[in-house]
Amino acid sequence: MPQYKAPLRDMQFVLHELLNAEEHYAKLPAFSDTVSRELVDQYLEAAADFCENELSPLNQVGDREGCTWNDGVVTTPTGFKEAYQKYIELGFPSLSADEEFGGQALPNSLGISISEMVGTANWAWGMYPGLSHGAVRTLEHHGSAEQKAAYLPNLVSGVWTGTMCLTESHAGSDLGIIRTKAEPQADGSYAISGEKIFISAGEHDMAENIVHIVLARLPGAPKGTKGISLFIVPKFNLTADGSVGERNGVRCGSIEHKMGIHGNSTCVINFDNAKGFLIGPENRGLNCMFTFMNTARIGTAVQGLSASEGAFQGALTYAKDRLAMRSLTGPKAPEKEADPIIVHPAVRNMLFTQKAFAEGGRALVYLLAQHADVVEKGATEEERKFSDNILSLLTPIAKAFLTETGSESAKHGVQVFGGHGFISEHGMEQIVRDTRISCLYEGTTEIQAIDLLGRKVLGTQGAMLKDFTKIIHKFAEANKDNAAMAEFVAPLATLNKEWGDLTMQIGMKAMQNPDEVGGAAVDYLYFSGYVTLAFLWARMALVAQEALAAGTTEVDFYNAKITTARFYFKKILPRVRAHVDVIAGGVDPLMTLDAEHFAF
Amino acid sequence: MPQYKAPLRDMQFVLHELLNAEEHYAKLPAFSDTVSRELVDQYLEAAADFCENELSPLNQVGDREGCTWNDGVVTTPTGFKEAYQKYIELGFPSLSADEEFGGQALPNSLGISISEMVGTANWAWGMYPGLSHGAVRTLEHHGSAEQKAAYLPNLVSGVWTGTMCLTESHAGSDLGIIRTKAEPQADGSYAISGEKIFISAGEHDMAENIVHIVLARLPGAPKGTKGISLFIVPKFNLTADGSVGERNGVRCGSIEHKMGIHGNSTCVINFDNAKGFLIGPENRGLNCMFTFMNTARIGTAVQGLSASEGAFQGALTYAKDRLAMRSLTGPKAPEKEADPIIVHPAVRNMLFTQKAFAEGGRALVYLLAQHADVVEKGATEEERKFSDNILSLLTPIAKAFLTETGSESAKHGVQVFGGHGFISEHGMEQIVRDTRISCLYEGTTEIQAIDLLGRKVLGTQGAMLKDFTKIIHKFAEANKDNAAMAEFVAPLATLNKEWGDLTMQIGMKAMQNPDEVGGAAVDYLYFSGYVTLAFLWARMALVAQEALAAGTTEVDFYNAKITTARFYFKKILPRVRAHVDVIAGGVDPLMTLDAEHFAF
Repeated sequence: MPQYKAPLRDMQFVLHELLNAEEHYAKLPAFSDTVSRELVDQYLEAAADFCENELSPLNQVGDREGCTWNDGVVTTPTGFKEAYQKYIELGFPSLSADEEFGGQALPNSLGISISEMVGTANWAWGMYPGLSHGAVRTLEHHGSAEQKAAYLPNLVSGVWTGTMCLTESHAGSDLGIIRTKAEPQADGSYAISGEKIFISAGEHDMAENIVHIVLARLPGAPKGTKGISLFIVPKFNLTADGSVGERNGVRCGSIEHKMGIHGNSTCVINFDNAKGFLIGPENRGLNCMFTFMNTARIGTAVQGLSASEGAFQGALTYAKDRLAMRSLTGPKAPEKEADPIIVHPAVRNMLFTQKAFAEGGRALVYLLAQHADVVEKGATEEERKFSDNILSLLTPIAKAFLTETGSESAKHGVQVFGGHGFISEHGMEQIVRDTRISCLYEGTTEIQAIDLLGRKVLGTQGAMLKDFTKIIHKFAEANKDNAAMAEFVAPLATLNKEWGDLTMQIGMKAMQNPDEVGGAAVDYLYFSGYVTLAFLWARMALVAQEALAAGTTEVDFYNAKITTARFYFKKILPRVRAHVDVIAGGVDPLMTLDAEHFAF
Repeated sequence: MPQYKAPLRDMQFVLHELLNAEEHYAKLPAFSDTVSRELVDQYLEAAADFCENELSPLNQVGDREGCTWNDGVVTTPTGFKEAYQKYIELGFPSLSADEEFGGQALPNSLGISISEMVGTANWAWGMYPGLSHGAVRTLEHHGSAEQKAAYLPNLVSGVWTGTMCLTESHAGSDLGIIRTKAEPQADGSYAISGEKIFISAGEHDMAENIVHIVLARLPGAPKGTKGISLFIVPKFNLTADGSVGERNGVRCGSIEHKMGIHGNSTCVINFDNAKGFLIGPENRGLNCMFTFMNTARIGTAVQGLSASEGAFQGALTYAKDRLAMRSLTGPKAPEKEADPIIVHPAVRNMLFTQKAFAEGGRALVYLLAQHADVVEKGATEEERKFSDNILSLLTPIAKAFLTETGSESAKHGVQVFGGHGFISEHGMEQIVRDTRISCLYEGTTEIQAIDLLGRKVLGTQGAMLKDFTKIIHKFAEANKDNAAMAEFVAPLATLNKEWGDLTMQIGMKAMQNPDEVGGAAVDYLYFSGYVTLAFLWARMALVAQEALAAGTTEVDFYNAKITTARFYFKKILPRVRAHVDVIAGGVDPLMTLDAEHFAF
């Protein structure tokens, strides 16, 4: 069974050396006085301890036992409830919430690093507080003062948890066609009726109350996405003094049997004239929900990073230990009956791939978290706007690219173990199963791709993309005379220019045929992902070179960074060539076959 | 739950129109009088009926129930035993065996088409007769007359089943280090002791006896692969009259909990002074085993094809039915609340990918099966030798490329279903889990890659590759003036030449550094796979064009073939560019990092 070890050194490298967290927080008025490097590191260490010692040991337990449903009551796996109590006691749920509601008013970006550790140690468990966080954020942004006062303190403390109820059986990616109804009542509340599915943490035994945030339609609401409103629907209604009262008309009809994340309850939730309360304006529910969705997408990108990190940790340990065959260049461990498999280039290729995606993914997610801090707390409108653009562009990339590469890393984890990778006790196949959902929920890879290419890039006439390629361009210009960086800067600059050209090429075609956007989007997303990670790997290589030049004592650590950057540029980045050529093939080869003629 | 439908029309297209099965059998003296098109089609239809109606309904049952172990006794899932009885009654186990032992002496290639249907309908079930077939083939080739007489009749009829016992806990890819011992006994038998793991169908309740074919070491045998011998070890010893007698010292110690193929028992088998009988010469066990391994590798390639076909069938049905969003070019089903998702280019891309791999994979596997027929039954030494070369070259390609692309297709199956793909009842995630093992057993993808590039291609100074590229070259030359074929022939001819150049380039580097072979092998295998399938798709397009020119009534069927070929060339084949560029990056980026510096 794999034992999680928080990669604190690498997290600190990304936070402090690559992204200058201290400087970042110093620039934000909300945190300039309160958040120091010491504080950040303290929190990371506390979270590492909790994740390594409490959550990681429960990861396989959760997978094996799963959740059980009995007449509407859901029981979580052994130990999950107790771990959640400890999590509350350690104050993690309240980290980034407002002080007014009992929060610690710390930056969301700090929460992301902790999410990474929680998620790598035990993703299924982490979804319980994770979904709650989504409900808190939605209430913080769109709840009325009374709603906040009624629900936030207990959600922030973690005594209650929250959910997000969007999907219905017939409506997933297309929320415009949901059918759950909200009937206005004389007391100003609404009677909510309908069935929601795939409600993560929708019912469980960890909290006193569960606060559902629900999408539903008002009578006579316009069709489609412009007729959807957002409601609070608690599992137990609140009494006059705000404590848990009578059961509301909300029941868990069943839980799903699924490929992975068995430890998390994925619920069918039936609303039967349940008492609900409108959040935000009528028919603007989807807009309110977007606040949550963007955060949730970064949160899902973390799942991809977690899969890469977890699979890497498992595979690396095994590859150093397992003996098979001799190196093609002669025995490396002649005293043993065979060499450890890490001598074989194909095994190293898989390990490096995982490492490059884990560490590169970490850099990308943490970068986004910093931009999210600025969007919320930036000192000037200009800063906030700029970060919002970067965040909008990079969120679908991070979500789709890191979850897909996370799945790839998980696959390599199994492969490094050979046949043993297929066996449950080794834990590698669980990562494949658990992380598979990350490419589906919070918008599939295909939905992210359309969001990126259609809405973010072409929808802004390339303006949002230019904001980012300009940053890359500046970096390349600033380092073009640094000979040691040439192996990274030269290909990066070329691809950065190609990114714009490729966009133009697709945009031109799309004017003739809008389907060209849909035909190119997924490959465009991969292209964008590989280039974005190349930029971050080049920056990491530069930080490492500077540390070496400054005479660091951690020579091996920084050399490994440069070696991994080199691996990324030589052995991963060439994949863009396939995507460019596939895009050049256009959409026609996809569209001419009649649906009835796919099979005979 | 997906209901399997045998793709008989496509199977017949490949067998009769692409590969001229009738002509193929007419050229083989063993089959020229007995095997007609009618006979082939009759068998296919009988197998289709069995697979659709008996095996497919048990596929999810097997996954859900799994096998249970109780004190050495393994119980298979509900219905498995009864289905196996029907399979015996229908005479499928004896199809390709010698008449001398009760077989029907039909071609192995016919068995492959049936394996495809069995495997797509229910892979876990199909492994019981599949492994048995391996034992039969090994005995047919290497058993003594007495051994054949004693074991083959009951194995051929299916009353007994067989296994192949190779792997030990510490020895999978590297069989040279196995430890199971065989001590010679006074009566000419051997006492076998040791523990084997991952023994598929190693213990179950379907057959009266189980005949294990076991790799073990004789006392004082040379170290490594040259000191391994092969033994027959029955679960029950035979009495003097050949019937089932006393229990031998063979026990199933446990069964594995694994990612997929839950319906198949994957056993730890303990041999405790079990009575065994040497097959073939001492210390030549691995050589004898190769007969089985090559067949098993083609059999595993079938699993990849099955995954592509099964996932395609599920995804296509869903994509025509599920409604979400509108086409970017305007509503296609304005009377419905949304368009069926098959209107979206990204969904079509996934469906076409599955279709191209399934139908292309079918062509490749059936082609190999024909070459295997010739190797065994060819009229002349020259024919046999030529087919052996082609088969040797293409087997690792088919095994690794079709299982990896099968996994990709399975992934798309889940993705087309969106969140529902993650839910067990829809059956798509089961395909992902079941097929994952195909990239691991019978030699991992990495092992196949080394076999291809190291042994088959460079090991013959390119001679084996030239045999095949010459065939492609001739095809391209023969069709170079056919304007309708230009879109296929021109890129195929270019890549065919590049295949040789790429090989030279790697061969040159490998003379300096043998690790270059290991560094390039996996990408080289993918390159080879994509080009091989391109050749087959070009040939299929030609067959379709000729049928259309001849005035076929099945215009839609043949047009779909051409459209799929076009899709393959435009949207799949460009992937080779990434592999070529990655190979150009060489092995150095993989080898410079010390094993201890992969993580800090």
